[in-house]
Amino acid sequence: MKWALAFQDEEKFRRREQEHPERELEHALSSKYESLNYEISENQLYRDEEGNPDHHMKLWHRSRNRWIVCFLIGVITALIAAAIDIMVHYSQQIKFRIIIKRLLSKCDKETDLTGAGCMWTVEIAWMCYNCLLVGVAGFLVIFWSPVAGGSGIPQIKCYLNGIQIPEVVKLKTLISKAVGVACAVGGGLSAGKEGPMIHSGAVVGAGISQGRCRSVPFDTGLFKEFRNDRERRDFVSAGAAAGVAAAFGAPIGGVLFSLEEGASFWNQNLTWRMNKNYNIWEVPLFLMVGIIGGLTGALFNHLNSKMTEFRKKYVSNKWRRLVECLLVAAISAFTGFITLFLVDDCQPVGVNPNITEVNQMWCKKGEYSAVAKLFFQNPEESVKALFHSPINSFRPWTLLIFSLEYYLLTLWTFGLSVPAGVFIPAILTGAAWGRFFGIGVGRAFPNITGIDPGKYALAGAAAQLGGIVRMTISLTAIIMEATKDITFGLPIMLVLMITKWVGDIFNEGLYDIHIDIQEIPILGWHPPKMSRNILAEKVMRPDVVAMERRERVARVLAVLRATSHHGFPVVDRIEESAHSSLPDYGHLKGVILRSQLVTLLEKRVSYPFPSRSQNFFTSTLVHLLNLYRLFAFNKKQQDKSVDSLGLTMSDELCWMDLEPFIHPHPHRVPLNASLSFIFQLFRGLGLRYLAVVNDENKLRGIITRKDVARFRERRSNRKYQVQELYIAEDR
Amino acid sequence: MKWALAFQDEEKFRRREQEHPERELEHALSSKYESLNYEISENQLYRDEEGNPDHHMKLWHRSRNRWIVCFLIGVITALIAAAIDIMVHYSQQIKFRIIIKRLLSKCDKETDLTGAGCMWTVEIAWMCYNCLLVGVAGFLVIFWSPVAGGSGIPQIKCYLNGIQIPEVVKLKTLISKAVGVACAVGGGLSAGKEGPMIHSGAVVGAGISQGRCRSVPFDTGLFKEFRNDRERRDFVSAGAAAGVAAAFGAPIGGVLFSLEEGASFWNQNLTWRMNKNYNIWEVPLFLMVGIIGGLTGALFNHLNSKMTEFRKKYVSNKWRRLVECLLVAAISAFTGFITLFLVDDCQPVGVNPNITEVNQMWCKKGEYSAVAKLFFQNPEESVKALFHSPINSFRPWTLLIFSLEYYLLTLWTFGLSVPAGVFIPAILTGAAWGRFFGIGVGRAFPNITGIDPGKYALAGAAAQLGGIVRMTISLTAIIMEATKDITFGLPIMLVLMITKWVGDIFNEGLYDIHIDIQEIPILGWHPPKMSRNILAEKVMRPDVVAMERRERVARVLAVLRATSHHGFPVVDRIEESAHSSLPDYGHLKGVILRSQLVTLLEKRVSYPFPSRSQNFFTSTLVHLLNLYRLFAFNKKQQDKSVDSLGLTMSDELCWMDLEPFIHPHPHRVPLNASLSFIFQLFRGLGLRYLAVVNDENKLRGIITRKDVARFRERRSNRKYQVQELYIAEDR
Repeated sequence: MKWALAFQDEEKFRRREQEHPERELEHALSSKYESLNYEISENQLYRDEEGNPDHHMKLWHRSRNRWIVCFLIGVITALIAAAIDIMVHYSQQIKFRIIIKRLLSKCDKETDLTGAGCMWTVEIAWMCYNCLLVGVAGFLVIFWSPVAGGSGIPQIKCYLNGIQIPEVVKLKTLISKAVGVACAVGGGLSAGKEGPMIHSGAVVGAGISQGRCRSVPFDTGLFKEFRNDRERRDFVSAGAAAGVAAAFGAPIGGVLFSLEEGASFWNQNLTWRMNKNYNIWEVPLFLMVGIIGGLTGALFNHLNSKMTEFRKKYVSNKWRRLVECLLVAAISAFTGFITLFLVDDCQPVGVNPNITEVNQMWCKKGEYSAVAKLFFQNPEESVKALFHSPINSFRPWTLLIFSLEYYLLTLWTFGLSVPAGVFIPAILTGAAWGRFFGIGVGRAFPNITGIDPGKYALAGAAAQLGGIVRMTISLTAIIMEATKDITFGLPIMLVLMITKWVGDIFNEGLYDIHIDIQEIPILGWHPPKMSRNILAEKVMRPDVVAMERRERVARVLAVLRATSHHGFPVVDRIEESAHSSLPDYGHLKGVILRSQLVTLLEKRVSYPFPSRSQNFFTSTLVHLLNLYRLFAFNKKQQDKSVDSLGLTMSDELCWMDLEPFIHPHPHRVPLNASLSFIFQLFRGLGLRYLAVVNDENKLRGIITRKDVARFRERRSNRKYQVQELYIAEDR
Repeated sequence: MKWALAFQDEEKFRRREQEHPERELEHALSSKYESLNYEISENQLYRDEEGNPDHHMKLWHRSRNRWIVCFLIGVITALIAAAIDIMVHYSQQIKFRIIIKRLLSKCDKETDLTGAGCMWTVEIAWMCYNCLLVGVAGFLVIFWSPVAGGSGIPQIKCYLNGIQIPEVVKLKTLISKAVGVACAVGGGLSAGKEGPMIHSGAVVGAGISQGRCRSVPFDTGLFKEFRNDRERRDFVSAGAAAGVAAAFGAPIGGVLFSLEEGASFWNQNLTWRMNKNYNIWEVPLFLMVGIIGGLTGALFNHLNSKMTEFRKKYVSNKWRRLVECLLVAAISAFTGFITLFLVDDCQPVGVNPNITEVNQMWCKKGEYSAVAKLFFQNPEESVKALFHSPINSFRPWTLLIFSLEYYLLTLWTFGLSVPAGVFIPAILTGAAWGRFFGIGVGRAFPNITGIDPGKYALAGAAAQLGGIVRMTISLTAIIMEATKDITFGLPIMLVLMITKWVGDIFNEGLYDIHIDIQEIPILGWHPPKMSRNILAEKVMRPDVVAMERRERVARVLAVLRATSHHGFPVVDRIEESAHSSLPDYGHLKGVILRSQLVTLLEKRVSYPFPSRSQNFFTSTLVHLLNLYRLFAFNKKQQDKSVDSLGLTMSDELCWMDLEPFIHPHPHRVPLNASLSFIFQLFRGLGLRYLAVVNDENKLRGIITRKDVARFRERRSNRKYQVQELYIAEDR
C-alpha cells in the first residue's frame, strides 16, 4: 500500500500541471532543466572517511591537483582562443587576398556596377564563400550540437547559477563552438567571437577537471576527487574566467574570477590604447551618449526577443534554420557590397597608415574607401579605426548608414543557429554612431577645439554594449583594460550606469531575455521585492515522495521508476493520513540521493530482514556512493538505468537500511518561513532542495530551486509585484 | 523560579570559563567583540508593513538614496585622501625647503661631520621636527582614539566579516586617522598612507549612510532606512573600496567592490608606468624573487608578531607608548642621516632628471646623493626612482643597506601607536632589494643585454608586499593598475603566488596575525578541514536563555540585566528538567532581539493579564522596533539602559506578549549537524546566531559566531587538525 505512494504522487504531479489552464503559456519555466547539487552529502561513511589516517594525504593531493588543473585550463583555453583567432585570420585572408583580390584585379573599377558584370562576379564569389563558411557553422550547430549556438554566455551564466543545461559542457559542444564561431566570423556575419570563447573556456574547465570525456568516451582516471557538481562548478567558473581573459586580453576582468584557483593566461589582440583626455563639460555629452545607448539597446533587446519568438514558431525545421543562416550570410555580404557602391566615401590614403589593398575598391589610386574599411576588415580593426582615425577619416553619413545596417544585421544574427557573440558587433555599432555623434558635436560647437570624435566612439561603444547586455562592473573592467587607460574610467562608468538605468526602464539585458525565453529556472541576485508575505507553505510542493530509514527494495524500485527526483527525504515514519490523500510523514531524518539508491541496488546492499546492517558495509563503499554519477534526466534513460540493474523478484522482497547513507542534516525551514528567507538560503548556499517541516520537525513538503525560481519580481507603474510562473512539462 | 534562570545561567557561564585553567592563555578569543547582525527580523509587524500601500514609495526612495549616499561616499573619501596627501606634501615641504635647506645653506658641506657642528644642527632640527609630527600622531592615537592606530585594514576586514569592533567607524577615529597618518608619514616614519586611507573611506561609508554622527552628536534625520547592520556593512564596504581607489589610483581594484552600489572616485598619484618587456628566461629569476619575498615576508611577520607581544607586555603604559613613538621617529631620522653620511654614493645629476636640491647633501655640485634620493623623498617618488632610473643610478650596496634598514624600521613601525600602513614601506623595501637582485643578475650574466634592474625592482616590490600581506587577487589588480601595463601581469601573478606558497609554509599574513593577536573571532573563507565529525552538540552552548511567548515584565528585566546577549530564542514552553539543572525548552517559535525588548519596555507595551494583545500595537510601532539601536556591550552601560527605563513595581507585574515581535523562523540546525555545515551557514548568510534543535524541533542550545570561530584549522606535518580555542572574558 505504502509502495503505491510513488505512483499516486506522480499522478498528482500531472494533475497539478493541468489544473491551471488559464495561465498564460508565455510565462512558464521549463521542466527540462535540472539543478546542480552543490551540497555535500555528509553521510556516516563520509564522516568515517575523515577519520581515516590517509585522509590527510588525500587532502594534499587534492589541493595540488587543483593547481595543476587550473594551469591546464588556462593554457588550453588560451590555445583554443588562439586557434579560433588563427582560423578567423586565415579564412579572411583566403577571402580577401585570394578570392577578392584576384577577381578584382581583372575588373575595371572605374566603370559602373551595372556596366561591367565583372563586379557582380566578385560579389557572387564573395557571397558564396561566406555562405559556405556560415553553412558549415550552421550545420555543426543544427545537426550536431544545438547547444553550441549563440554566444553561450546565457548558458554559462545559468550553469554557474546552479542549473544543469544538457550538453552545455561537452566536448562536441566545444568543437562545434570553436569551429563554428571561426566560420561565422570568417564568413562575414555580424558576430563576435568573445562569447563563444568564454563558453569554450568553460567547457575546457569542465572537461579537464573531470579528467575524462563522455563523448569519445575516454577516461584518464585522473582527478576523480573533482567529480562532483561543486568542484566542477568551480572549475567551470575558472574556465569561463580564462575565456574572458583570452577573449578580451582583460586579465583582471578574468583573473578576478579565477586567480585564487590558479593560473591564467591571455593574449592581447584587443587593446585600444586611448591617449586622449576629456573635459569636464563633455560629461553631459557622454551622458547623452549613454541615454542613446540605453534606448537603442532596449530597442535591440525588444526586437531580438520578438525575432526569437518568431523564429521559435516559424523557423522550427532544421533545414529552414540552415537556410536562414545562409540567407543572413548572403545578405550580410550583399549589404556591405551595395553600401560600398552607393556611399561614395573615398579618402586619401595619406591621412591613415593602416590601409590594405582591399580597402581601395572603387576608389582611385591613392585613395581608399571608408566603407570598405568598416565592412571588410576584422571588426576589431574597424573598432580601432573608429577610435583612432583622424577627424575627417569618415564622412558622418557613412557612419550613420553603417551603424544602422550593422545594428540590423546584428539583430538578425544574434539567435541564429551559429555560434556568435554580440560583444564586438555591439561595440562596432556603438563606435560608429558614437563617432557620428562626436562629429555632430564638433560641428555644433565649431569654436571649441579638442572635440575628438574618437572619444565619442569609445563612449558610444560602451553605451551600445551596455544597453544590450546591461553589465556594469565587468564591462567597465573589460573596456578600461582594453583601452589601457584609467583616464576614461569615470566617463565609461557614468555612461554604463546611465545606459543601464535607461535600458532597465524598458526591459532586461539580452542574456536574461534569452534565459527567460528558454524558460530556464534561474535565480537572480536578490529575492523578489515584496516577497515576505509569501510563505514556505505556498512555495513548497506538499506531494513529496519520502522514504523510511528501512525500506523494501520493491518500494525503492517503484519510487525510482515512477519519479525523476534527484533526492528523497528520509523520515522516521510514513503513515496514511486520515484527512488527506497525502501521507503523514514523521520527523525529518535526512535525505538520500537517487544516485546513492541506484548504487546500493547495483551493489545489492540489502538484507532479507528489516534489521540494522551492522558492519555490513565496508569503507570502500564510500567511494562507490560518492562517485559522481551523472544521471540523464529524461525518462527513458533513467528507467533503463534502474531496469538494467537486473533485480530479481527475490531481490525485491529484501530490505535496505538507508541510515548509514543518508545526509543526516539537510537544510530545513518551518512552514512560516518567507520566500525571501528561502531565496537567500538557496542563493547563499547553492542548494538544490530544501525540506519544509512543521513545528514538530515533521516533513510537510519540499522546495526545489524551480519552485523558488517560479516567483519573479515584476515592476509596473512604480509598484513591485511578485509574478508566479508555473512549471511546464514537455516543452 | 523560572525568573531566576537567567542568573543561574550567568553563573554557569562564569564557571565554564574557569573550568579549563589548563588551556594556554595565548590561544583564546576575546569576548569584547560582538557580532553584527545581517539578518532581518521578519516579525509580523514587518510583514504587515510590506502590505502597506505606500511601501512601494519607500522602496523607490531607498534605492534613490542608495545612489546619493554612494556618490557622497566617493566624493568625500576622495577629498579626505587628497587632504591627507596635501598635509603630507606640506609637512615635507616645510621640512626640506625651510628647515633643512636654510640650515644646510649655512654649512660647509665639504668638511667632515665631526669637524663641523653645523651638520649636527641640521640633524637635530630634522629629528625634532619629525618627533614633533610623530608625537602629534601618537598623542591622537594613544590618548584620544586607540582604534585609529595601525593600518586599519585588519579592523575593516573584521568589520566586513561581521564583527563589531568598538569605535572603528566613528568620526573621531576618522579625524585622528587622517591627521595622524599625515603626521606619521610627514614625520619620516617608515609608514604608508594606503591602509589608513582605506580605513578612512570605511568610516565615511558608515557615517554618511547613517546620516548622523554619534560623537558630536549630530543627526540629519536622513537615511534612516539604512540604519541597520546589513545596510551599514554594504556602505562600509563601498567606502573601503572608495578608499582603495583613492589610495592606489586603482579604480578596478576598488570599483569591483563598489560599482554595483554606486559611483566611485579616485586620484592618480600612484602610477608607475612600465614600458618594458621581459624575456621568458627571466621567469625563473622572477620566481627566485618570489621565494625571497616569501621568506623575508614570513620573517617579517614572525618578528612583528613577537614584537607586538613584547609591546603588549612591556609597553603597556600610555606614556611609554608615546615615548616609543618618539624614539622610532628619532631613530628613523637618524638612520637616514647616518647612512647618507657613511655611504658615499654620489651620482652625476646628468643621468637623472628629477633631482631636487635636497638630494645634493654631501655631494659636490652637479652631483646628487643616491641615498638621499631613497630616504628623503616621498616614498612614492623613491619607488618610481627604483623602477625607472637608469641602470647605474644606485650602487648595489646602497640598495642593500637601504633595504635592510628600511625593512627593520618598517618592522618596528608597524604596530606602533600611530596610524601607519605597511603597503608603501613594503613596496619600497622590496623594490630596493629587487633592484639589487637585478643588478646582481646583470653582473652574473654580463653577455646578456636587456636585464633592466627596474623590472626586478617591480618584482621585488610585489614579492615583499605579497610576502607580508599574502593577498593575491587584489594585489595583482592593484599592482597591475599602478604599473598601467598588462605586460607584467603574468610575472607579477607568478611572483605573488610563489610568495604566498612560500610564506604560508611558515605563518599567516600580517593582517591575520594581528587579528589573531587581538583575539578577534573572525571566520575564514572555508570551514576548517577535518571538521565533519565535530557536531552541533559540541559547538553549541546548551545553557541558553530563552523566553516564552508571553512573559512577565519582571522576568524580561531580570534576563536583560543578567545577560548581555543580543537576542533570545522564544519557545512555546519552558519547564524545569528532571535530570538536568538546565530547563527543558519546548518547540522553537522564534527569536526576539534585545533592542526590541528594551523598546517594548520603554513604550510600556505590557498588559495586566497574560492575554493576547489584539490590535493594541499600531503600525507605527514597527518603526520603533526596527529602529537601529546600537547597544553598548559593556555591562555598566547596558544595566543603565535597562534601569533608566524607570519601570515601577507594578509595571514589573505586568505581562508582555512577544508574539507579534518575534522573528518567526530563525535559522536552525539539528543536533547532529557538522561544524563544516554550520560554518557554511554562518559564512554564506552572515548569521549572528543559530538555534540548535532536537529531532522534535525543541530548543537545545544556541551557536553564536564566536562559538564557531573558536574552532581553527591548524596544520602540522601535513596533518590538518582542528584546534579549539576558548572565549576569554575581561581581556
